[in-house]
Amino acid sequence: MKFITYEFGRKESVGIIKGDKVVSVEDIANCMSWEKPQSMIELIEKYSEDMLKKIENVIKKKVDLKLLSLSDVKIKAPIPYPKRNVLCLGKNYVEHAKEIKITRIAGTGIPEEPIYFTKIAAPAIGHEDEIKFSYEVTNQVDYEVELAIVIGKDGVNIRKEDAEEYIFGYTIVNDVSARDLQGKHKQWFKGKSLDTFCPMGPCIVHKKDIPFPVELNIKCSVNGELRQNSNTKNLIFDIPYIISDLSKGMTLKVGDIICTGTPSGVGMGFEPIKVLKDGDLIECSIEKIGKLINKVKVI
Amino acid sequence: MKFITYEFGRKESVGIIKGDKVVSVEDIANCMSWEKPQSMIELIEKYSEDMLKKIENVIKKKVDLKLLSLSDVKIKAPIPYPKRNVLCLGKNYVEHAKEIKITRIAGTGIPEEPIYFTKIAAPAIGHEDEIKFSYEVTNQVDYEVELAIVIGKDGVNIRKEDAEEYIFGYTIVNDVSARDLQGKHKQWFKGKSLDTFCPMGPCIVHKKDIPFPVELNIKCSVNGELRQNSNTKNLIFDIPYIISDLSKGMTLKVGDIICTGTPSGVGMGFEPIKVLKDGDLIECSIEKIGKLINKVKVI
Repeated sequence: MKFITYEFGRKESVGIIKGDKVVSVEDIANCMSWEKPQSMIELIEKYSEDMLKKIENVIKKKVDLKLLSLSDVKIKAPIPYPKRNVLCLGKNYVEHAKEIKITRIAGTGIPEEPIYFTKIAAPAIGHEDEIKFSYEVTNQVDYEVELAIVIGKDGVNIRKEDAEEYIFGYTIVNDVSARDLQGKHKQWFKGKSLDTFCPMGPCIVHKKDIPFPVELNIKCSVNGELRQNSNTKNLIFDIPYIISDLSKGMTLKVGDIICTGTPSGVGMGFEPIKVLKDGDLIECSIEKIGKLINKVKVI
Repeated sequence: MKFITYEFGRKESVGIIKGDKVVSVEDIANCMSWEKPQSMIELIEKYSEDMLKKIENVIKKKVDLKLLSLSDVKIKAPIPYPKRNVLCLGKNYVEHAKEIKITRIAGTGIPEEPIYFTKIAAPAIGHEDEIKFSYEVTNQVDYEVELAIVIGKDGVNIRKEDAEEYIFGYTIVNDVSARDLQGKHKQWFKGKSLDTFCPMGPCIVHKKDIPFPVELNIKCSVNGELRQNSNTKNLIFDIPYIISDLSKGMTLKVGDIICTGTPSGVGMGFEPIKVLKDGDLIECSIEKIGKLINKVKVI
């Protein structure tokens, strides 16, 4: 199942994609006399796998559900206001770790241990929203397509073999980065956290639809030119490792989002470097999840 | 005025300290027929300075308000669940920047630009709660007393001369740090974000009670031994600079917490280094705010 957060008639709702239509989870909850989830996080928290199975059946049975056309709704980030910053990994694909070497950001080469940092994602922007920045703040903005894990339940000291149990599903995050600010402030947070720098979506795909271990083609193009092209099987630290290592002494919470790192082909990896400019169209796509498209606007 | 979040009879409330008593803001709201704030963040968001003045008057007039003894309530972190990670500055006192040199964490010497990182604070722990960690996760835990700014309203690209306007008040954060994890993961986030590593409080002091620029004695002792002893006037990047610089292209939001850095005297600055151990009692105090006391428990 693919879950989205959308706006229709000024109301924000959680929905499930069915072909080119969307079914409101509120409608389904009404059918089933369940409590309505007020947000995606509430759905993840309160709806058991058993309930999700029932939803799937209801949708299949085509009972009397109102369907909206996907083109009529505004797709928002699936979790527009995560409760904590998005958790991110730096340099988690070998070829990317090599290409970023030339920038001398936080050591060179392939990391021996995961590099964790955070990114403000409250609010996160959605599919087709604009990435906006001013040259007064940065003139080295870059894209980074990433597979993002959405945590399904709280957990601490999670064993690698139990990792999948703590996952709700997967989405795409474009880890937009101001390279000059990453260097200037040494720690990466500020360069990763400018307003609009967290495009997320378009949907969350439930983990049941993606075989584990996760091996998905991951791509990013700028103005139609393919720049990044890899597969999530190439992660240096894989998903079970990340969840286990990150949760050592630090509780992962339902609704937390973990960005697993970006493959090679970022603008910073070219010689000379390529930076994003006004009007650039960035398409981040991951197999089985979809395409997250955002345009750049220099303000 | 000093604001606290406290628990009494299993109910969490926002209150104001009056000597050794606490007045519930809910009671005051009832008196005034105002909407009751459900949390400290709601109070900061919804209560104007004019309303706060009226509250001050009500308390002074000693009208029929129920007073609880401070010793009868459980003091929690003033904002137990910040909506975004706590924003932190690294190496923002000269003497601390020098002492930390030997650890080779993220460059040496005095920074030319602020070093920003984040710390998970959802949940933050309160006064007299325990800092807990396991030697399986870290064996280099350190204390860092810091003056923390609580943001009072949303703002982006804030001018230095307008900075105070965006402040609601001040509190104390002990930026507990696992030094080994800071080094291991290169970026500091994980080493700063273990469960219970964000003691905060005991109260938020409204900005009107603290003259601007903020020049407050700041101290930390471990088991009665004074380790850190400085004044917030010694910040390398001062409060107007931090608020202005951090808000460049990145909206600061009401309820955001900014930790302004720690003075010299951390355990990592000693030779040989001093690490926290089971039973250690850490007292962080800042003039005009109070004392934040937490005990260490190795689990």
